[in-house]
Amino acid sequence: MPKPNHRNKILNAGLAVFHEQGFHGCGIQDIVTYAGVPKGSFYNHFKSKDALGLEILKMYWEANAEKRAILHNEKVPAIERIEKYLEATGYHEHGCLIGNFSSELAGAEAFRSSLDELYQYWIKDVAACIKVGQQDGSISKEDNPENMAEFIIASLEGAILKTKVSRDQKILERFRKFIRVFISK
Amino acid sequence: MPKPNHRNKILNAGLAVFHEQGFHGCGIQDIVTYAGVPKGSFYNHFKSKDALGLEILKMYWEANAEKRAILHNEKVPAIERIEKYLEATGYHEHGCLIGNFSSELAGAEAFRSSLDELYQYWIKDVAACIKVGQQDGSISKEDNPENMAEFIIASLEGAILKTKVSRDQKILERFRKFIRVFISK
Repeated sequence: MPKPNHRNKILNAGLAVFHEQGFHGCGIQDIVTYAGVPKGSFYNHFKSKDALGLEILKMYWEANAEKRAILHNEKVPAIERIEKYLEATGYHEHGCLIGNFSSELAGAEAFRSSLDELYQYWIKDVAACIKVGQQDGSISKEDNPENMAEFIIASLEGAILKTKVSRDQKILERFRKFIRVFISK
Repeated sequence: MPKPNHRNKILNAGLAVFHEQGFHGCGIQDIVTYAGVPKGSFYNHFKSKDALGLEILKMYWEANAEKRAILHNEKVPAIERIEKYLEATGYHEHGCLIGNFSSELAGAEAFRSSLDELYQYWIKDVAACIKVGQQDGSISKEDNPENMAEFIIASLEGAILKTKVSRDQKILERFRKFIRVFISK
């Protein structure tokens, strides 16, 4: 019988290994070794490496819900919520799994459409906050909230990518400074 | 004896295959098959897949020198040069090889340091143009030219990444519009 805790171990191991080595940079063997479960156990829980990858993408997105909640905290002025949210995304040695999968797996339709959907939710969350700021006059009306949110999120992914290469967290600080200028002008 | 034309065939095939499938998404066999050369020929010209990847990165960078030359055309106002350069980077279904390798290979030191060096040259080229624009008053003095160039390049990579996922070239158009606002304000 499949052991439910093996499933969780594989999910957590897959997240760590995909994040560090990339989706194609590792095999199922690396994941089960990291998880400390027998290889046979993998197929009791997941149809394929792709199926695991898609589930991990969803898990990663959900694990970041707490950070996105900052965007909806009505007690904080909208412009500050965006700043705090961008600060909270912080630094990770291996970058953002959404960005990494976007780069590596956009050619695989199941991943591309899942990623596209996640970006839509993400843009919606940031845009809702921009809308409030545009209404209270603290955020620029340069464009509609969705287009501005798209630019912020894509630029965040770009800044994270550059940070991964240069190993310099100041890139993210400078990025936040420029976004502050962008949204407040 | 190694056939020199095989070397070029492998380089061109490697560029196409790495760009489409990612570095780890393909094997040497895929590259020699694409190139139409015998597998044994690969090791006559390249020590390893890594060695090929590093050479292709350099080749890709050099192939884009013509576009970067736009940034140095003194007959065109600095702000327009940046706009024209960003337009010239255009759209590619598989994104930017520099961005793709940044995402996939920043964990491998030889790639990370090569990529970091390329970004430094790239920033220098864009920054030189920003400096001229800051002197003639057409470009914002929000920050020093290097930091502004870094933001533009990282955000360009982010916009290209998002375009790859959403298959919507308007993302790049909107990115250029926002960068125009950013540099001219």
